[in-house]
Amino acid sequence: MSTTKTVRWGIIGLGWFGEVHAETLADMPGIELAALCTRRADRLAELGNRFGVAKRYTDFRQLLADPDVDVVDVVTHIDDHRDITIEALQSGKHVFLEKPMAPTVADCDRIVEAAGRAEGFFMVGHICRFDPRVAQAKQAIDEGRIGKIISMHARRNLSKTIGRMVLDKISALMGDGIHDGDLMLWFSRAKPVSVYAQEVHPGKNKYPDGGWAMARLDNGAVAVIESVWHLPETTPYQIDARMEILGTEGAIYVNCGEAGLEVHDAAGNHLPDTLYWPRVFGQRFGILRAELRYFADCVAQGQRPDRITPEESRAAVALLAAAVESSQTGKVIHF
Amino acid sequence: MSTTKTVRWGIIGLGWFGEVHAETLADMPGIELAALCTRRADRLAELGNRFGVAKRYTDFRQLLADPDVDVVDVVTHIDDHRDITIEALQSGKHVFLEKPMAPTVADCDRIVEAAGRAEGFFMVGHICRFDPRVAQAKQAIDEGRIGKIISMHARRNLSKTIGRMVLDKISALMGDGIHDGDLMLWFSRAKPVSVYAQEVHPGKNKYPDGGWAMARLDNGAVAVIESVWHLPETTPYQIDARMEILGTEGAIYVNCGEAGLEVHDAAGNHLPDTLYWPRVFGQRFGILRAELRYFADCVAQGQRPDRITPEESRAAVALLAAAVESSQTGKVIHF
Amino acid sequence: MSTTKTVRWGIIGLGWFGEVHAETLADMPGIELAALCTRRADRLAELGNRFGVAKRYTDFRQLLADPDVDVVDVVTHIDDHRDITIEALQSGKHVFLEKPMAPTVADCDRIVEAAGRAEGFFMVGHICRFDPRVAQAKQAIDEGRIGKIISMHARRNLSKTIGRMVLDKISALMGDGIHDGDLMLWFSRAKPVSVYAQEVHPGKNKYPDGGWAMARLDNGAVAVIESVWHLPETTPYQIDARMEILGTEGAIYVNCGEAGLEVHDAAGNHLPDTLYWPRVFGQRFGILRAELRYFADCVAQGQRPDRITPEESRAAVALLAAAVESSQTGKVIHF
Amino acid sequence: MSTTKTVRWGIIGLGWFGEVHAETLADMPGIELAALCTRRADRLAELGNRFGVAKRYTDFRQLLADPDVDVVDVVTHIDDHRDITIEALQSGKHVFLEKPMAPTVADCDRIVEAAGRAEGFFMVGHICRFDPRVAQAKQAIDEGRIGKIISMHARRNLSKTIGRMVLDKISALMGDGIHDGDLMLWFSRAKPVSVYAQEVHPGKNKYPDGGWAMARLDNGAVAVIESVWHLPETTPYQIDARMEILGTEGAIYVNCGEAGLEVHDAAGNHLPDTLYWPRVFGQRFGILRAELRYFADCVAQGQRPDRITPEESRAAVALLAAAVESSQTGKVIHF
Repeated sequence: MSTTKTVRWGIIGLGWFGEVHAETLADMPGIELAALCTRRADRLAELGNRFGVAKRYTDFRQLLADPDVDVVDVVTHIDDHRDITIEALQSGKHVFLEKPMAPTVADCDRIVEAAGRAEGFFMVGHICRFDPRVAQAKQAIDEGRIGKIISMHARRNLSKTIGRMVLDKISALMGDGIHDGDLMLWFSRAKPVSVYAQEVHPGKNKYPDGGWAMARLDNGAVAVIESVWHLPETTPYQIDARMEILGTEGAIYVNCGEAGLEVHDAAGNHLPDTLYWPRVFGQRFGILRAELRYFADCVAQGQRPDRITPEESRAAVALLAAAVESSQTGKVIHF
Repeated sequence: MSTTKTVRWGIIGLGWFGEVHAETLADMPGIELAALCTRRADRLAELGNRFGVAKRYTDFRQLLADPDVDVVDVVTHIDDHRDITIEALQSGKHVFLEKPMAPTVADCDRIVEAAGRAEGFFMVGHICRFDPRVAQAKQAIDEGRIGKIISMHARRNLSKTIGRMVLDKISALMGDGIHDGDLMLWFSRAKPVSVYAQEVHPGKNKYPDGGWAMARLDNGAVAVIESVWHLPETTPYQIDARMEILGTEGAIYVNCGEAGLEVHDAAGNHLPDTLYWPRVFGQRFGILRAELRYFADCVAQGQRPDRITPEESRAAVALLAAAVESSQTGKVIHF
Repeated sequence: MSTTKTVRWGIIGLGWFGEVHAETLADMPGIELAALCTRRADRLAELGNRFGVAKRYTDFRQLLADPDVDVVDVVTHIDDHRDITIEALQSGKHVFLEKPMAPTVADCDRIVEAAGRAEGFFMVGHICRFDPRVAQAKQAIDEGRIGKIISMHARRNLSKTIGRMVLDKISALMGDGIHDGDLMLWFSRAKPVSVYAQEVHPGKNKYPDGGWAMARLDNGAVAVIESVWHLPETTPYQIDARMEILGTEGAIYVNCGEAGLEVHDAAGNHLPDTLYWPRVFGQRFGILRAELRYFADCVAQGQRPDRITPEESRAAVALLAAAVESSQTGKVIHF
Repeated sequence: MSTTKTVRWGIIGLGWFGEVHAETLADMPGIELAALCTRRADRLAELGNRFGVAKRYTDFRQLLADPDVDVVDVVTHIDDHRDITIEALQSGKHVFLEKPMAPTVADCDRIVEAAGRAEGFFMVGHICRFDPRVAQAKQAIDEGRIGKIISMHARRNLSKTIGRMVLDKISALMGDGIHDGDLMLWFSRAKPVSVYAQEVHPGKNKYPDGGWAMARLDNGAVAVIESVWHLPETTPYQIDARMEILGTEGAIYVNCGEAGLEVHDAAGNHLPDTLYWPRVFGQRFGILRAELRYFADCVAQGQRPDRITPEESRAAVALLAAAVESSQTGKVIHF
């Protein structure tokens, strides 16, 4: 056996998704989970012990200063994205940032600028691009198999149980619409001309539980985004995520909600996740792993990631932020 | 960055599936595609050049003798499984063998015996066990969520286009039923008591195009396997593979045929593979990769693989071989 | 407005399905629900009052003697089918008999004989033949669109909640397999050569909760019937009924379980019946109505019903009775 | 046998759907297809001969003057709806009018007014209300099973093959959106507050091939309508029609496109209609029949139809006409 280089990873932000990152990274070959950071000391101890990570920080600047960290993985609250990311880029680290890039286009502009000046690599985790269903859809579109796109619809709905946990941090329309906004612009290689949106707010959290956005793109297509985090507690869906992409010569249908497994037990009916980050034999399998793998490989090979550019991540925020503005003002927003 | 060991892999057998192995292994971190072997010199040159593999053999014994190979990956015609595998085990290499283990139980017995004496690790590639849909089904069963299994059905049907390419080597019932036979015994932790089968042979190849087997297991369950490689050329299914597992307290449904992507283009309707070994951004994503990863990790860490034992692989062959005997004699076969 | 004749209907047997018959007939134009019969006086009063039927009998012979009844509709326990049907036919009435025709082939033979001598019309209610999904499948087969049938599978599974109510009267394999046995012989225009079956009996009722039968037909096809009345209480299926019909040139898939409506409410997930006899605006819509309509039209127009012959109904019983015999003896039954 | 009254039916407009009406009415008990009317003499002769209808008119006023016609069934081009309907109502006949009621709200107002003064009964054929999937959804909503509606989406997409035949008469958004607009107002018992829409026009017909409308209702719900008549020629869908109705306490999903039958033959894959007006044993089965039955029963029993009121039909036109105005002006339309 010969040898290869290992990429050392530090995670900032240890909420539930930071933990999923840790679980995924922990057993990936060629990757070392090298450092963890959160302001909550007990959480830091818990995950540090669980994953056997010695380097533990409550201040993210300490992690940025650690020479034994190659990649900084930002999985914090969206409101902290801008400052941590910019400082991390300035520190010379490679930065992997969870989506959405930042709450506002102005914040995004500053991140894009910092990324442009940085030596380290930078990518926002638009995980759906690594979904084999989505990636093959993109490939079919690029091959011209459905002609020119004329209409797209994306649904990404969640149980109110999940909604309640997240809706004080971000709205459904911004939180999940960001995925589909990004995918629709990527699929169509188009820019939005206008967007109109409506939101609903039946719950008691800070942000609206659901929203619909309708964009006109500069290639003539209509793009409609639906994101409602208010499905009943009994919903079988882990996530009801699907897309319809209609072209002049064909049609593509993606279904990430009915993903090949249905379990009916005493507690009801369940359609578990089988691809995003399911636990398989104790390992986190699937798309998140592939996404982190991609970034690690870029770092190991010194090859700047080009699958998702900072400009694209900014464009998705711009689309959804305009949708939220439309929802709040009742006006059609033109770009 | 630190370093890890690399597992050096040699493939014997370069048909279409040996090529898929090569494509998958070629870009896996910690793995080196070190050697290739086939009797066909032109094919050897083609794939050797494509994957940049210097060590190329037309005689498998040369590959077995190569000290720079850690794992021997046997992807040959089933009739060659026994002899190559036994010699590979005797050579001290780790051996990964494609399913089914061998054509007969007697052959399997000899392989099991050789594996028992060998220092190298050995595993038959029952790929479906690494399927996140299937693995999560197994986990739900083991957690008791569906109670005691009472009835199982598995369908694994293919287009006649594929059938015509394979049916001179193996029957549909043995070729694909082996997957489901293995899974059903694994799910139920039971042994077959009897099996009855019927086959159909509408095509012109050597082996029957389709077959049905009905087994009684020693836990009282009925297990029914359907494998028909005669779907119309227009079938949208890449593979129509699904399972139903009914228990005293619940039910599980697995669907690997409708895997979240549907493409309608000028050529018709398509339900591409999104999990077994789809090409995503030029990489082979998914279950095959996870399976090979598992074996490589076992080798790298010096930990004997225990997810699939040689005895289990033999048991699946025993079940399907009895089914074929039933089909040929018209009799119920008792174990 | 001009006028048409009305067919006067008398129902013998007022269990839950007799009641569904009554509900369906009650508002059909050209039909008068003229008489009701059951041994249970309270039930007779209840339904007589509800449907405004004046003629009420506790002895079926009284109903047979009533000159104001044109059609006798036998919806009794299967064990009473033979005697009531034969006497009804001898009385000169038209007879509509619920499936299965009778418990044994010998009983069927006597009914077939009586029907042959009778002046009145006779039909067994193989309701699935009137299912537009099934009827269109039959039409596609007859048009040669899938070539020659090589393999068929039918599943007709129910919740254990329903199973417990019915399994003291009839087994799952006979009770629901009769539908699919009839359809498979109808589709293929073939005769069974042999049949093999296995049943499971996890419940505490008299008859087995589930069964699988595998028949070889004289056109070379394999026909597999699955009937398990032991789905969990949480199953979303009103009935999980589906068929796969594979031919040399095509394939047909029928799905009667996922019938276009899914309701997720506080009690769980539900896939209601939308076609057999759903209540729509207080009326019983669909297939049962179409079936009874057909028989009424035959009677009104004096045209002997020919869609389902007594011989066909007998053949379905013969197939399933042989399957039950196989299950009980462990032997393959040859015809 | 006793007797009942027969309702005599006259059809004005013998395009493809007028013919489907004729086929359906031709064999319904209690109904007599009494008269036919179209300006095309050859078409009149063809259908008159086929259905054995003696009374044939090329001028609709002749049919209105015929004393042997009870019901006038208007199945003409939408541009002729207003004048024929008003004259028919003034003639004292009962009038069944195909949807949409009329092209403009002003036209609708005049029809509503005429209906209010008429002695005959009047109903617009919003056929989907008679769909057992839809009607049961309505019932579940009315029972409070999903709480208060917060979001609705309806898709009703067709092949471009059909689009090309219809798009010179009406746009996709108006032509099929009228169904869903009506259903959404019916489900929610709400009124629209505002609507915004976008259309696409990739084809060469007069009207846009597809459109999306987003309405805000006065109960706070968002209602989104999708109608694209540009699916590829290879689409398996007869119609891809589905609805999602999300409430505060539950969710309902209706799928009319995958209706239980899939045929794969040499020509491709097909998901035939099994409920709207499929041909079953030579008869037109299903929802259209139920709808016409309802109106005929109202007439026969002298009971004014109340399931669909003229005001409701007008409201659906008002919603969709505003959507079209929004699409044309780029503005949000407020009611």
